[in-house]
Amino acid sequence: MIKSVSLVGAGNLATQLGLALKKAGIPLKQVYSRTEKSARELGELLECSYLTELENLKPSDLVIVSVKDDALHEVLKQIKTDAIVVHTGGSVPMDILAPYFKQFGVFYPLQTFSKKRNVSFGPIPICLEASSTAVYAELEKLGEKLSKHVQAVSSEERKTLHLAAVFTCNFVNHLYHLGDLLLEDKGLDFELLKPLIQETAQKVMTLKPKDAQTGPAVRFDESIINKHLNLLSDQPEMQKMYRMVSESIFHATKKK
Amino acid sequence: MIKSVSLVGAGNLATQLGLALKKAGIPLKQVYSRTEKSARELGELLECSYLTELENLKPSDLVIVSVKDDALHEVLKQIKTDAIVVHTGGSVPMDILAPYFKQFGVFYPLQTFSKKRNVSFGPIPICLEASSTAVYAELEKLGEKLSKHVQAVSSEERKTLHLAAVFTCNFVNHLYHLGDLLLEDKGLDFELLKPLIQETAQKVMTLKPKDAQTGPAVRFDESIINKHLNLLSDQPEMQKMYRMVSESIFHATKKK
Repeated sequence: MIKSVSLVGAGNLATQLGLALKKAGIPLKQVYSRTEKSARELGELLECSYLTELENLKPSDLVIVSVKDDALHEVLKQIKTDAIVVHTGGSVPMDILAPYFKQFGVFYPLQTFSKKRNVSFGPIPICLEASSTAVYAELEKLGEKLSKHVQAVSSEERKTLHLAAVFTCNFVNHLYHLGDLLLEDKGLDFELLKPLIQETAQKVMTLKPKDAQTGPAVRFDESIINKHLNLLSDQPEMQKMYRMVSESIFHATKKK
Repeated sequence: MIKSVSLVGAGNLATQLGLALKKAGIPLKQVYSRTEKSARELGELLECSYLTELENLKPSDLVIVSVKDDALHEVLKQIKTDAIVVHTGGSVPMDILAPYFKQFGVFYPLQTFSKKRNVSFGPIPICLEASSTAVYAELEKLGEKLSKHVQAVSSEERKTLHLAAVFTCNFVNHLYHLGDLLLEDKGLDFELLKPLIQETAQKVMTLKPKDAQTGPAVRFDESIINKHLNLLSDQPEMQKMYRMVSESIFHATKKK
Protein backbone atom coordinates (compact mmCIF):
# COMPACT_ATOMS: atom_id res chain seq x y z
CA MET A 1 0.00 0.00 0.00
CA ILE A 2 1.46 3.32 -1.11
CA LYS A 3 1.28 5.70 1.83
CA SER A 4 3.88 8.30 1.01
CA VAL A 5 5.06 9.77 -2.24
CA SER A 6 8.08 11.77 -3.36
CA LEU A 7 7.85 14.01 -6.38
CA VAL A 8 10.87 14.53 -8.59
CA GLY A 9 10.14 17.49 -10.83
CA ALA A 10 8.14 20.67 -10.28
CA GLY A 11 6.59 21.32 -13.67
CA ASN A 12 2.94 21.60 -14.67
CA LEU A 13 2.17 17.91 -14.35
CA ALA A 14 4.13 17.44 -11.10
CA THR A 15 2.34 20.44 -9.58
CA GLN A 16 -1.16 19.29 -10.47
CA LEU A 17 -0.50 15.65 -9.62
CA GLY A 18 0.96 16.72 -6.28
CA LEU A 19 -2.13 18.79 -5.53
CA ALA A 20 -4.43 15.92 -6.49
CA LEU A 21 -2.53 13.46 -4.28
CA LYS A 22 -2.63 15.87 -1.36
CA LYS A 23 -6.36 16.36 -1.84
CA ALA A 24 -6.85 12.58 -1.91
CA GLY A 25 -5.13 12.32 1.45
CA ILE A 26 -1.84 10.90 0.23
CA PRO A 27 0.92 12.88 1.89
CA LEU A 28 3.75 14.18 -0.19
CA LYS A 29 7.04 13.33 1.53
CA GLN A 30 9.13 15.81 -0.42
CA VAL A 31 9.56 17.47 -3.75
CA TYR A 32 12.71 17.84 -5.76
CA SER A 33 13.54 20.40 -8.39
CA ARG A 34 16.86 21.36 -9.91
CA THR A 35 16.27 24.99 -9.06
CA GLU A 36 15.80 26.27 -5.50
CA LYS A 37 12.94 28.56 -6.50
CA SER A 38 10.67 26.01 -8.10
CA ALA A 39 11.49 23.39 -5.44
CA ARG A 40 10.54 25.82 -2.68
CA GLU A 41 7.40 27.02 -4.42
CA LEU A 42 6.06 23.52 -4.92
CA GLY A 43 7.13 22.45 -1.42
CA GLU A 44 5.18 25.37 0.02
CA LEU A 45 2.15 24.66 -2.16
CA LEU A 46 2.10 21.00 -1.14
CA GLU A 47 3.17 21.71 2.44
CA CYS A 48 6.10 19.32 2.38
CA SER A 49 9.87 19.54 2.42
CA TYR A 50 11.81 20.29 -0.74
CA LEU A 51 15.28 19.58 -2.03
CA THR A 52 17.57 20.43 -4.91
CA GLU A 53 19.98 17.51 -4.48
CA LEU A 54 18.67 14.04 -5.24
CA GLU A 55 21.12 12.41 -2.84
CA ASN A 56 19.04 13.96 -0.03
CA LEU A 57 15.89 12.09 -1.10
CA LYS A 58 14.35 10.40 1.94
CA PRO A 59 12.65 6.99 1.69
CA SER A 60 9.01 6.89 0.57
CA ASP A 61 6.75 4.20 -0.92
CA LEU A 62 6.70 5.74 -4.37
CA VAL A 63 8.90 8.13 -6.32
CA ILE A 64 7.16 9.93 -9.17
CA VAL A 65 9.62 11.30 -11.71
CA SER A 66 8.11 14.04 -13.83
CA VAL A 67 10.89 15.88 -15.63
CA LYS A 68 11.52 16.86 -19.23
CA ASP A 69 12.41 13.78 -21.29
CA ASP A 70 15.88 15.14 -22.08
CA ALA A 71 16.71 15.33 -18.36
CA LEU A 72 15.37 11.90 -17.47
CA HIS A 73 18.56 9.78 -17.52
CA GLU A 74 20.55 12.35 -15.60
CA VAL A 75 17.88 12.39 -12.89
CA LEU A 76 17.24 8.63 -12.78
CA LYS A 77 20.85 7.71 -12.18
CA GLN A 78 20.93 9.87 -9.06
CA ILE A 79 17.91 8.24 -7.43
CA LYS A 80 18.85 5.44 -5.04
CA THR A 81 15.80 3.61 -3.79
CA ASP A 82 14.14 0.21 -3.38
CA ALA A 83 10.72 1.83 -3.61
CA ILE A 84 8.56 1.86 -6.72
CA VAL A 85 9.68 4.48 -9.22
CA VAL A 86 7.37 5.70 -11.99
CA HIS A 87 7.71 8.26 -14.72
CA THR A 88 4.85 10.27 -16.19
CA GLY A 89 6.02 10.68 -19.77
CA GLY A 90 3.71 9.99 -22.70
CA SER A 91 6.46 9.12 -25.16
CA VAL A 92 9.01 7.42 -22.89
CA PRO A 93 8.95 3.61 -22.77
CA MET A 94 8.69 2.05 -19.34
CA ASP A 95 11.91 0.09 -19.84
CA ILE A 96 14.00 3.21 -19.55
CA LEU A 97 13.62 2.63 -15.79
CA ALA A 98 14.78 -1.00 -15.81
CA PRO A 99 18.54 -0.40 -15.45
CA TYR A 100 18.03 1.73 -12.35
CA PHE A 101 15.25 0.20 -10.25
CA LYS A 102 13.78 -3.11 -9.12
CA GLN A 103 10.14 -1.99 -9.04
CA PHE A 104 8.99 0.49 -11.59
CA GLY A 105 6.22 1.62 -13.87
CA VAL A 106 4.46 4.46 -15.65
CA PHE A 107 1.76 6.70 -14.23
CA TYR A 108 0.49 8.82 -17.12
CA PRO A 109 -2.51 11.08 -16.56
CA LEU A 110 -3.77 12.06 -20.03
CA GLN A 111 -4.52 15.75 -19.60
CA THR A 112 -3.11 19.24 -20.21
CA PHE A 113 -1.79 20.73 -16.99
CA SER A 114 -0.82 24.27 -16.14
CA LYS A 115 0.58 25.27 -12.78
CA LYS A 116 -2.03 27.90 -12.10
CA ARG A 117 -5.11 26.08 -13.29
CA ASN A 118 -6.27 23.36 -10.91
CA VAL A 119 -8.06 20.46 -12.54
CA SER A 120 -10.29 17.77 -11.19
CA PHE A 121 -8.63 14.38 -11.68
CA GLY A 122 -11.93 12.48 -11.50
CA PRO A 123 -12.56 12.14 -15.26
CA ILE A 124 -8.89 12.00 -16.33
CA PRO A 125 -7.72 8.69 -17.81
CA ILE A 126 -4.74 7.46 -15.81
CA CYS A 127 -2.69 5.14 -18.01
CA LEU A 128 -0.67 2.60 -16.10
CA GLU A 129 2.13 0.23 -16.88
CA ALA A 130 4.21 -1.71 -14.35
CA SER A 131 7.22 -4.00 -14.04
CA SER A 132 5.15 -6.66 -12.24
CA THR A 133 1.53 -7.43 -11.38
CA ALA A 134 2.28 -6.57 -7.75
CA VAL A 135 3.53 -3.12 -8.72
CA TYR A 136 0.58 -2.71 -11.08
CA ALA A 137 -1.84 -3.46 -8.25
CA GLU A 138 -0.21 -0.82 -6.07
CA LEU A 139 -0.32 1.82 -8.79
CA GLU A 140 -3.90 0.93 -9.61
CA LYS A 141 -4.98 1.41 -6.00
CA LEU A 142 -3.28 4.79 -5.95
CA GLY A 143 -4.73 5.82 -9.31
CA GLU A 144 -8.23 4.90 -8.21
CA LYS A 145 -7.96 7.33 -5.33
CA LEU A 146 -7.62 10.09 -7.93
CA SER A 147 -9.66 9.01 -10.94
CA LYS A 148 -12.50 6.80 -12.10
CA HIS A 149 -10.62 5.93 -15.27
CA VAL A 150 -7.52 3.96 -14.45
CA GLN A 151 -6.42 1.54 -17.14
CA ALA A 152 -3.50 -0.49 -18.43
CA VAL A 153 -1.82 1.08 -21.45
CA SER A 154 1.36 -0.35 -23.00
CA SER A 155 4.38 1.80 -23.89
CA GLU A 156 3.47 1.36 -27.58
CA GLU A 157 -0.13 2.48 -27.04
CA ARG A 158 0.92 5.36 -24.83
CA LYS A 159 3.13 6.75 -27.59
CA THR A 160 0.13 6.91 -29.92
CA LEU A 161 -2.06 8.42 -27.22
CA HIS A 162 0.53 11.09 -26.59
CA LEU A 163 0.78 11.90 -30.29
CA ALA A 164 -3.01 12.12 -30.57
CA ALA A 165 -3.01 14.36 -27.49
CA VAL A 166 -0.58 16.74 -29.20
CA PHE A 167 -2.95 17.01 -32.17
CA THR A 168 -6.15 17.37 -30.15
CA CYS A 169 -4.78 19.59 -27.38
CA ASN A 170 -1.55 21.46 -28.16
CA PHE A 171 -2.28 21.96 -31.85
CA VAL A 172 -5.91 22.80 -31.10
CA ASN A 173 -4.79 25.37 -28.56
CA HIS A 174 -2.46 26.86 -31.13
CA LEU A 175 -5.41 27.31 -33.49
CA TYR A 176 -7.20 29.13 -30.68
CA HIS A 177 -4.12 31.33 -30.44
CA LEU A 178 -4.12 32.04 -34.18
CA GLY A 179 -7.82 32.90 -34.00
CA ASP A 180 -7.03 35.26 -31.13
CA LEU A 181 -4.30 36.95 -33.19
CA LEU A 182 -6.60 37.40 -36.19
CA LEU A 183 -9.21 39.09 -34.02
CA GLU A 184 -6.71 41.19 -32.06
CA ASP A 185 -5.37 42.54 -35.33
CA LYS A 186 -8.81 43.99 -36.11
CA GLY A 187 -9.64 45.07 -32.56
CA LEU A 188 -12.21 42.30 -32.12
CA ASP A 189 -12.72 40.53 -28.82
CA PHE A 190 -11.74 36.85 -28.34
CA GLU A 191 -14.93 36.57 -26.25
CA LEU A 192 -16.82 36.33 -29.55
CA LEU A 193 -15.24 32.95 -30.28
CA LYS A 194 -15.82 31.35 -26.90
CA PRO A 195 -19.30 29.86 -27.50
CA LEU A 196 -17.99 28.45 -30.79
CA ILE A 197 -14.93 26.91 -29.14
CA GLN A 198 -17.06 25.32 -26.43
CA GLU A 199 -19.65 23.95 -28.84
CA THR A 200 -16.94 22.57 -31.15
CA ALA A 201 -15.49 20.59 -28.24
CA GLN A 202 -18.93 19.64 -26.94
CA LYS A 203 -20.07 18.30 -30.30
CA VAL A 204 -17.46 15.54 -30.36
CA MET A 205 -18.58 14.30 -26.96
CA THR A 206 -21.53 12.74 -28.83
CA LEU A 207 -20.69 12.87 -32.56
CA LYS A 208 -17.70 11.36 -34.37
CA PRO A 209 -15.45 14.30 -35.31
CA LYS A 210 -15.83 13.55 -39.01
CA ASP A 211 -19.63 13.76 -38.66
CA ALA A 212 -19.38 16.99 -36.68
CA GLN A 213 -17.43 18.86 -39.36
CA THR A 214 -18.88 22.06 -40.83
CA GLY A 215 -17.46 25.03 -42.74
CA PRO A 216 -16.19 25.86 -46.21
CA ALA A 217 -13.68 23.01 -46.66
CA VAL A 218 -16.11 20.17 -45.99
CA ARG A 219 -18.70 21.89 -48.25
CA PHE A 220 -16.08 22.37 -51.02
CA ASP A 221 -16.98 26.05 -50.96
CA GLU A 222 -14.09 27.34 -53.06
CA SER A 223 -15.42 30.87 -53.18
CA ILE A 224 -15.05 31.27 -49.40
CA ILE A 225 -11.77 29.39 -49.28
CA ASN A 226 -10.30 31.76 -51.86
CA LYS A 227 -11.58 34.79 -49.93
CA HIS A 228 -9.91 33.47 -46.80
CA LEU A 229 -6.64 32.78 -48.59
CA ASN A 230 -6.71 36.36 -49.90
CA LEU A 231 -7.40 37.69 -46.45
CA LEU A 232 -4.24 35.90 -45.29
CA SER A 233 -2.03 37.20 -48.09
CA ASP A 234 0.04 39.22 -45.60
CA GLN A 235 0.52 36.20 -43.36
CA PRO A 236 2.15 33.52 -45.51
CA GLU A 237 2.61 31.10 -42.59
CA MET A 238 -1.07 31.10 -41.70
CA GLN A 239 -2.03 31.04 -45.36
CA LYS A 240 0.06 27.89 -45.84
CA MET A 241 -1.55 26.33 -42.80
CA TYR A 242 -5.04 27.28 -44.02
CA ARG A 243 -4.35 25.62 -47.36
CA MET A 244 -2.87 22.48 -45.82
CA VAL A 245 -5.62 21.90 -43.28
CA SER A 246 -8.37 22.62 -45.82
CA GLU A 247 -6.84 20.08 -48.21
CA SER A 248 -6.63 17.57 -45.39
CA ILE A 249 -10.34 18.15 -44.67
CA PHE A 250 -11.11 17.61 -48.39
CA HIS A 251 -9.31 14.27 -48.35
CA ALA A 252 -10.96 13.15 -45.13
CA THR A 253 -14.37 14.05 -46.57
CA LYS A 254 -13.77 12.10 -49.77
CA LYS A 255 -12.80 9.04 -47.75
CA LYS A 256 -16.16 9.08 -45.92
CA MET B 1 -41.95 44.56 -35.64
CA ILE B 2 -40.97 41.29 -37.28
CA LYS B 3 -43.83 38.85 -36.75
CA SER B 4 -43.35 36.32 -39.49
CA VAL B 5 -40.25 34.92 -41.13
CA SER B 6 -39.54 33.02 -44.33
CA LEU B 7 -36.48 30.83 -44.56
CA VAL B 8 -34.68 30.42 -47.86
CA GLY B 9 -32.31 27.49 -47.52
CA ALA B 10 -32.53 24.26 -45.55
CA GLY B 11 -28.94 23.64 -44.49
CA ASN B 12 -27.44 23.33 -41.02
CA LEU B 13 -27.70 27.01 -40.13
CA ALA B 14 -31.21 27.44 -41.59
CA THR B 15 -32.40 24.38 -39.69
CA GLN B 16 -31.05 25.47 -36.32
CA LEU B 17 -32.05 29.11 -36.77
CA GLY B 18 -35.55 28.02 -37.77
CA LEU B 19 -35.82 25.85 -34.66
CA ALA B 20 -34.60 28.71 -32.45
CA LEU B 21 -37.11 31.16 -33.97
CA LYS B 22 -39.93 28.68 -33.52
CA LYS B 23 -38.93 28.14 -29.91
CA ALA B 24 -38.84 31.90 -29.36
CA GLY B 25 -42.43 32.14 -30.57
CA ILE B 26 -41.70 33.63 -33.98
CA PRO B 27 -43.73 31.68 -36.53
CA LEU B 28 -42.05 30.46 -39.67
CA LYS B 29 -44.22 31.35 -42.64
CA GLN B 30 -42.54 28.94 -45.05
CA VAL B 31 -39.25 27.37 -45.95
CA TYR B 32 -37.68 27.09 -49.36
CA SER B 33 -35.16 24.58 -50.60
CA ARG B 34 -34.08 23.73 -54.13
CA THR B 35 -34.83 20.07 -53.49
CA GLU B 36 -38.24 18.71 -52.54
CA LYS B 37 -36.82 16.39 -49.93
CA SER B 38 -34.96 18.95 -47.83
CA ALA B 39 -37.76 21.52 -48.21
CA ARG B 40 -40.30 19.00 -46.94
CA GLU B 41 -38.10 17.77 -44.10
CA LEU B 42 -37.48 21.27 -42.78
CA GLY B 43 -41.13 22.29 -43.31
CA GLU B 44 -42.22 19.30 -41.24
CA LEU B 45 -39.66 20.00 -38.54
CA LEU B 46 -40.73 23.65 -38.28
CA GLU B 47 -44.41 22.89 -38.85
CA CYS B 48 -44.81 25.32 -41.71
CA SER B 49 -45.37 25.15 -45.46
CA TYR B 50 -42.49 24.52 -47.81
CA LEU B 51 -41.71 25.31 -51.43
CA THR B 52 -39.17 24.55 -54.11
CA GLU B 53 -39.99 27.51 -56.40
CA LEU B 54 -39.12 30.98 -55.13
CA GLU B 55 -41.87 32.59 -57.16
CA ASN B 56 -44.32 30.96 -54.76
CA LEU B 57 -42.87 32.78 -51.75
CA LYS B 58 -45.69 34.40 -49.77
CA PRO B 59 -45.24 37.77 -48.04
CA SER B 60 -43.63 37.84 -44.59
CA ASP B 61 -41.90 40.51 -42.50
CA LEU B 62 -38.44 39.03 -42.96
CA VAL B 63 -36.78 36.72 -45.45
CA ILE B 64 -33.68 34.96 -44.17
CA VAL B 65 -31.48 33.69 -46.99
CA SER B 66 -29.13 30.97 -45.86
CA VAL B 67 -27.70 29.20 -48.89
CA LYS B 68 -24.21 28.29 -50.05
CA ASP B 69 -22.35 31.44 -51.16
CA ASP B 70 -22.03 30.16 -54.71
CA ALA B 71 -25.83 29.91 -55.04
CA LEU B 72 -26.56 33.30 -53.52
CA HIS B 73 -26.99 35.48 -56.63
CA GLU B 74 -29.14 32.90 -58.39
CA VAL B 75 -31.44 32.77 -55.36
CA LEU B 76 -31.53 36.51 -54.64
CA LYS B 77 -32.65 37.49 -58.12
CA GLN B 78 -35.71 35.27 -57.80
CA ILE B 79 -36.93 36.81 -54.54
CA LYS B 80 -39.48 39.57 -55.10
CA THR B 81 -40.34 41.32 -51.86
CA ASP B 82 -40.56 44.66 -50.09
CA ALA B 83 -39.83 43.00 -46.75
CA ILE B 84 -36.43 42.99 -45.04
CA VAL B 85 -34.07 40.43 -46.55
CA VAL B 86 -30.99 39.24 -44.68
CA HIS B 87 -28.29 36.75 -45.47
CA THR B 88 -26.40 34.70 -42.88
CA GLY B 89 -22.99 34.40 -44.53
CA GLY B 90 -19.79 35.10 -42.66
CA SER B 91 -17.75 36.06 -45.70
CA VAL B 92 -20.38 37.76 -47.87
CA PRO B 93 -20.56 41.57 -47.71
CA MET B 94 -23.96 43.06 -46.95
CA ASP B 95 -23.94 45.09 -50.16
CA ILE B 96 -24.45 42.00 -52.26
CA LEU B 97 -28.15 42.50 -51.35
CA ALA B 98 -28.36 46.15 -52.42
CA PRO B 99 -29.23 45.61 -56.11
CA TYR B 100 -32.19 43.41 -55.21
CA PHE B 101 -33.91 44.86 -52.14
CA LYS B 102 -34.89 48.11 -50.45
CA GLN B 103 -34.44 46.93 -46.87
CA PHE B 104 -31.70 44.47 -46.14
CA GLY B 105 -29.04 43.34 -43.73
CA VAL B 106 -26.97 40.50 -42.31
CA PHE B 107 -27.97 38.18 -39.48
CA TYR B 108 -24.89 36.10 -38.67
CA PRO B 109 -24.98 33.78 -35.66
CA LEU B 110 -21.36 32.85 -34.91
CA GLN B 111 -21.62 29.15 -34.19
CA THR B 112 -21.14 25.69 -35.74
CA PHE B 113 -24.49 24.17 -36.64
CA SER B 114 -25.41 20.62 -37.55
CA LYS B 115 -28.91 19.56 -38.50
CA LYS B 116 -29.16 16.87 -35.88
CA ARG B 117 -27.59 18.69 -32.97
CA ASN B 118 -29.82 21.31 -31.42
CA VAL B 119 -28.01 24.20 -29.80
CA SER B 120 -29.08 26.83 -27.35
CA PHE B 121 -28.89 30.27 -28.99
CA GLY B 122 -28.66 32.10 -25.65
CA PRO B 123 -24.86 32.52 -25.55
CA ILE B 124 -24.30 32.73 -29.33
CA PRO B 125 -23.06 36.10 -30.64
CA ILE B 126 -25.48 37.35 -33.28
CA CYS B 127 -23.62 39.74 -35.56
CA LEU B 128 -25.86 42.29 -37.25
CA GLU B 129 -25.52 44.72 -40.08
CA ALA B 130 -28.34 46.64 -41.74
CA SER B 131 -29.12 48.99 -44.62
CA SER B 132 -30.66 51.56 -42.25
CA THR B 133 -31.01 52.24 -38.54
CA ALA B 134 -34.70 51.31 -38.79
CA VAL B 135 -33.85 47.91 -40.24
CA TYR B 136 -31.09 47.49 -37.67
CA ALA B 137 -33.56 48.15 -34.86
CA GLU B 138 -35.91 45.49 -36.22
CA LEU B 139 -33.15 42.92 -36.55
CA GLU B 140 -31.85 43.76 -33.10
CA LYS B 141 -35.27 43.19 -31.55
CA LEU B 142 -35.49 39.84 -33.29
CA GLY B 143 -31.94 38.85 -32.35
CA GLU B 144 -32.55 39.67 -28.71
CA LYS B 145 -35.40 37.19 -28.63
CA LEU B 146 -32.82 34.50 -29.39
CA SER B 147 -29.59 35.60 -27.76
CA LYS B 148 -28.08 37.78 -25.06
CA HIS B 149 -25.21 38.75 -27.35
CA VAL B 150 -26.50 40.76 -30.28
CA GLN B 151 -24.03 43.24 -31.69
CA ALA B 152 -23.20 45.37 -34.71
CA VAL B 153 -20.41 43.89 -36.83
CA SER B 154 -19.36 45.40 -40.16
CA SER B 155 -18.85 43.32 -43.32
CA GLU B 156 -15.07 43.83 -42.91
CA GLU B 157 -15.09 42.63 -39.31
CA ARG B 158 -17.39 39.74 -40.10
CA LYS B 159 -14.93 38.43 -42.70
CA THR B 160 -12.21 38.28 -40.05
CA LEU B 161 -14.56 36.67 -37.54
CA HIS B 162 -15.47 34.02 -40.07
CA LEU B 163 -11.83 33.30 -40.85
CA ALA B 164 -11.03 33.02 -37.14
CA ALA B 165 -14.03 30.71 -36.77
CA VAL B 166 -12.63 28.42 -39.45
CA PHE B 167 -9.35 28.17 -37.52
CA THR B 168 -10.91 27.71 -34.09
CA CYS B 169 -13.79 25.46 -35.10
CA ASN B 170 -13.45 23.67 -38.46
CA PHE B 171 -9.68 23.22 -38.25
CA VAL B 172 -9.90 22.30 -34.58
CA ASN B 173 -12.54 19.71 -35.38
CA HIS B 174 -10.27 18.31 -38.08
CA LEU B 175 -7.52 17.86 -35.50
CA TYR B 176 -10.02 15.94 -33.36
CA HIS B 177 -10.65 13.80 -36.42
CA LEU B 178 -6.94 13.17 -36.97
CA GLY B 179 -6.60 12.23 -33.29
CA ASP B 180 -9.49 9.83 -33.73
CA LEU B 181 -7.80 8.25 -36.76
CA LEU B 182 -4.51 7.82 -34.90
CA LEU B 183 -6.25 6.02 -32.06
CA GLU B 184 -8.51 3.94 -34.30
CA ASP B 185 -5.44 2.68 -36.11
CA LYS B 186 -4.15 1.17 -32.84
CA GLY B 187 -7.52 0.00 -31.56
CA LEU B 188 -7.66 2.72 -28.90
CA ASP B 189 -10.89 4.41 -27.89
CA PHE B 190 -11.55 8.08 -28.72
CA GLU B 191 -13.19 8.27 -25.26
CA LEU B 192 -9.67 8.54 -23.85
CA LEU B 193 -9.22 11.97 -25.44
CA LYS B 194 -12.51 13.49 -24.35
CA PRO B 195 -11.47 14.92 -20.97
CA LEU B 196 -8.41 16.42 -22.69
CA ILE B 197 -10.49 17.98 -25.46
CA GLN B 198 -12.90 19.48 -22.94
CA GLU B 199 -10.20 20.85 -20.70
CA THR B 200 -8.30 22.33 -23.67
CA ALA B 201 -11.43 24.28 -24.65
CA GLN B 202 -12.24 25.12 -21.04
CA LYS B 203 -8.79 26.53 -20.36
CA VAL B 204 -9.15 29.33 -22.90
CA MET B 205 -12.37 30.48 -21.28
CA THR B 206 -10.15 32.02 -18.59
CA LEU B 207 -6.57 31.98 -19.95
CA LYS B 208 -5.23 33.59 -23.12
CA PRO B 209 -4.55 30.71 -25.55
CA LYS B 210 -0.85 31.53 -25.67
CA ASP B 211 -0.67 31.25 -21.86
CA ALA B 212 -2.60 27.98 -21.90
CA GLN B 213 -0.18 26.20 -24.23
CA THR B 214 1.55 23.00 -23.07
CA GLY B 215 3.28 20.11 -24.81
CA PRO B 216 6.56 19.37 -26.57
CA ALA B 217 6.60 22.28 -29.05
CA VAL B 218 6.21 25.06 -26.49
CA ARG B 219 8.84 23.33 -24.29
CA PHE B 220 11.22 22.97 -27.26
CA ASP B 221 11.36 19.26 -26.44
CA GLU B 222 13.05 18.07 -29.61
CA SER B 223 13.44 14.53 -28.39
CA ILE B 224 9.65 14.05 -28.25
CA ILE B 225 9.04 16.00 -31.46
CA ASN B 226 11.43 13.69 -33.31
CA LYS B 227 9.76 10.62 -31.84
CA HIS B 228 6.38 11.90 -33.04
CA LEU B 229 7.69 12.68 -36.51
CA ASN B 230 9.08 9.13 -36.68
CA LEU B 231 5.77 7.71 -35.55
CA LEU B 232 4.15 9.53 -38.49
CA SER B 233 6.64 8.33 -41.09
CA ASP B 234 3.92 6.29 -42.85
CA GLN B 235 1.58 9.28 -42.94
CA PRO B 236 3.43 12.04 -44.80
CA GLU B 237 0.44 14.41 -44.80
CA MET B 238 0.07 14.31 -41.02
CA GLN B 239 3.83 14.44 -40.59
CA LYS B 240 3.95 17.63 -42.64
CA MET B 241 1.14 19.11 -40.60
CA TYR B 242 2.86 18.11 -37.33
CA ARG B 243 6.03 19.85 -38.45
CA MET B 244 4.25 22.98 -39.64
CA VAL B 245 2.11 23.47 -36.54
CA SER B 246 5.04 22.74 -34.19
CA GLU B 247 7.13 25.36 -35.98
CA SER B 248 4.28 27.82 -35.74
CA ILE B 249 4.08 27.15 -31.99
CA PHE B 250 7.86 27.77 -31.73
CA HIS B 251 7.51 31.12 -33.42
CA ALA B 252 4.52 32.15 -31.33
CA THR B 253 6.45 31.21 -28.18
CA LYS B 254 9.51 33.24 -29.16
CA LYS B 255 7.30 36.29 -29.77
CA LYS B 256 5.94 36.16 -26.22
